[in-house]
Amino acid sequence: MVQPPPARVGDHVDDIETPALIVDLDAFERNLKIMQETADRLGVKLRPHAKTHKSPVVAMRQMALGAVGQCCQKVGEAEAMVDGGILDVLVSNEVVGRRKLDRLAALAGRARIGVCVDHPDQISALAESVAVFDTRIEVLVEIDVGAGRCGVAPGEPAVELVKAIEAAPGLSFGGLQAYHGSAQHIRGWGERRQAIRKAADGVKMTKDALAAAGIDCPRVTGAGTGSFEFEAETGLWDEIQCGSYAFMDADYGRNFDEAGDPVSGFRNSLFVLASVMSAPAPGRAVCDAGHKSSAIDSGLPAVHGRADVTYAGASDEHGSLVVGAGAEALGLGDKVWLIPGHCDPTINLHDWFVAIRGGRVEALWPVAARGALR
Amino acid sequence: MVQPPPARVGDHVDDIETPALIVDLDAFERNLKIMQETADRLGVKLRPHAKTHKSPVVAMRQMALGAVGQCCQKVGEAEAMVDGGILDVLVSNEVVGRRKLDRLAALAGRARIGVCVDHPDQISALAESVAVFDTRIEVLVEIDVGAGRCGVAPGEPAVELVKAIEAAPGLSFGGLQAYHGSAQHIRGWGERRQAIRKAADGVKMTKDALAAAGIDCPRVTGAGTGSFEFEAETGLWDEIQCGSYAFMDADYGRNFDEAGDPVSGFRNSLFVLASVMSAPAPGRAVCDAGHKSSAIDSGLPAVHGRADVTYAGASDEHGSLVVGAGAEALGLGDKVWLIPGHCDPTINLHDWFVAIRGGRVEALWPVAARGALR
Repeated sequence: MVQPPPARVGDHVDDIETPALIVDLDAFERNLKIMQETADRLGVKLRPHAKTHKSPVVAMRQMALGAVGQCCQKVGEAEAMVDGGILDVLVSNEVVGRRKLDRLAALAGRARIGVCVDHPDQISALAESVAVFDTRIEVLVEIDVGAGRCGVAPGEPAVELVKAIEAAPGLSFGGLQAYHGSAQHIRGWGERRQAIRKAADGVKMTKDALAAAGIDCPRVTGAGTGSFEFEAETGLWDEIQCGSYAFMDADYGRNFDEAGDPVSGFRNSLFVLASVMSAPAPGRAVCDAGHKSSAIDSGLPAVHGRADVTYAGASDEHGSLVVGAGAEALGLGDKVWLIPGHCDPTINLHDWFVAIRGGRVEALWPVAARGALR
Repeated sequence: MVQPPPARVGDHVDDIETPALIVDLDAFERNLKIMQETADRLGVKLRPHAKTHKSPVVAMRQMALGAVGQCCQKVGEAEAMVDGGILDVLVSNEVVGRRKLDRLAALAGRARIGVCVDHPDQISALAESVAVFDTRIEVLVEIDVGAGRCGVAPGEPAVELVKAIEAAPGLSFGGLQAYHGSAQHIRGWGERRQAIRKAADGVKMTKDALAAAGIDCPRVTGAGTGSFEFEAETGLWDEIQCGSYAFMDADYGRNFDEAGDPVSGFRNSLFVLASVMSAPAPGRAVCDAGHKSSAIDSGLPAVHGRADVTYAGASDEHGSLVVGAGAEALGLGDKVWLIPGHCDPTINLHDWFVAIRGGRVEALWPVAARGALR
């Protein structure tokens, strides 16, 4: 169930077995540095999302540059982070079910743990688990700022939940979770900014309602790679939760900034390296990476470095490549560097990051929380 | 990287942590029995596809009923099968790259191994690896019978490859691979049958060309859950490679048989069990299974047993549920049984099958070849 790594440290990239999940260390480190510098400049804390990388190795790199902690979506991801040495984890999601709450309460004995709620029953259930383990958890109220998924409506409904948190033994109010996921992928800069402006109205209304009730709001957290500059410019968010910026993907490559360039200058550092395994007809080839290797929920992968080759179709284990007229043919064993359509679920398909620099394998990083669904 | 199982044997289904991959043993066993009986009646051998289940436990169940071996798409899957006690494995796919060929040649020291080719260079490369390990491999020629993916054109091009196989030391000609993948998902019975009739023309032409060259064709293998009866009725295929029949999925549920019923009476035995984690507004709920738990390449999951609830959208870790007007509301912690859109890539997202019967967990089966991409 855990697969052997596709390479060894020191291997030349040509000797990596395919398909393999590759991290270009120069681009990756550049992305990490740019994001931390940008967050510092904007005056917001950076709490990167571990749902993207699922790796304490990556988390540690982010922490070393100044990140204040990590976000997770699942208790299993939080366990992997704490076990890997990350001592400040926010589960930016609701958690339901006794066993999961017990796991979270137990984890809070070893790290600072936060979690989100959008219903009073989640608060009482959480209080029961922290009582068993005699730990404390910070509870954030999630408000729906436009995503239409989880979260209470901004304003008074949030205030009611905060009062319930403050009344519950073992729990403290940790602030507001305000994340607008779908806004990350609105292509136009102006439209994306407008969506976050509307989200900000909900945050402002909720902060005002809390203040009117005499409740201090310790923080507002949210935002992602596609929009964080807009959240920051409102002055309402204290903490941003970007994850994809470390790697980028084909989907984020379709977002534009104000000047019409790729968002914030982050570079693609994540690739699925694939090999041509069949070249059955002129202009057509098949590679060994299908959608079990590169997730297609946000579209097909792009082919890096070969503008004349298109990844035209994914089946489970095959990628169908179309070679443009007049372009150099693809032959058996030729490598193609795929930019995944969506980085998060692609990483979740692999057990190992193969970290490369200068054409050689420099490190193998386990995807420790791969499959941490619970 | 391997996650703890979501339950223990003996647990009540209500105590399974979610999301979890569930096998309903009664339906599963019924599917296995029906398929073997049908293959026997049709006079074809059954070589189920392990790309679907990735589990020697499932493979052993199929073998016990009469299956002649297993198919795999990847060398890593074949390794998992042989290590799990399956001693007859056909890699129904091309394999390119020295390390993979070495692994395959080494495996042939412990089991009967077959592999497909569609290019002479694959044959010479394979011969080099079997020479190193002093083993033998059966080599099948893949012909493109309409899928437009891998495979040579039917007829003479296949004959040329067979001659190269027969001339190569350590290799023997194992027959023809003739699989029309996309035909499995043509909805109408008549149209699906017509696609296989066209595929059969290619098989017939190739068998005739081999006979004219004085070459015996040991077998023709192919077919899937959506079409196997059509391949069998032609009398041209000796062996069928169905995999999904063991579990079925929402996509196969959209195929019709001659009478307009679901194909061959197979039942859904595979579910992703999910919990409602947020119920933020009337008529709307969010469950804890998104597309990292249930693959959406062939569409969203269906909700089993609740015709009044629709799985309307998948994000990475969330499933958005819409509750029909007048239907019983979904509350926090309520369970939903999802029928995955596509069984193969869904199974590949999980480490464990939770096998249930009569409302209790009867077994935990490791998804041994999960992530076996290479």
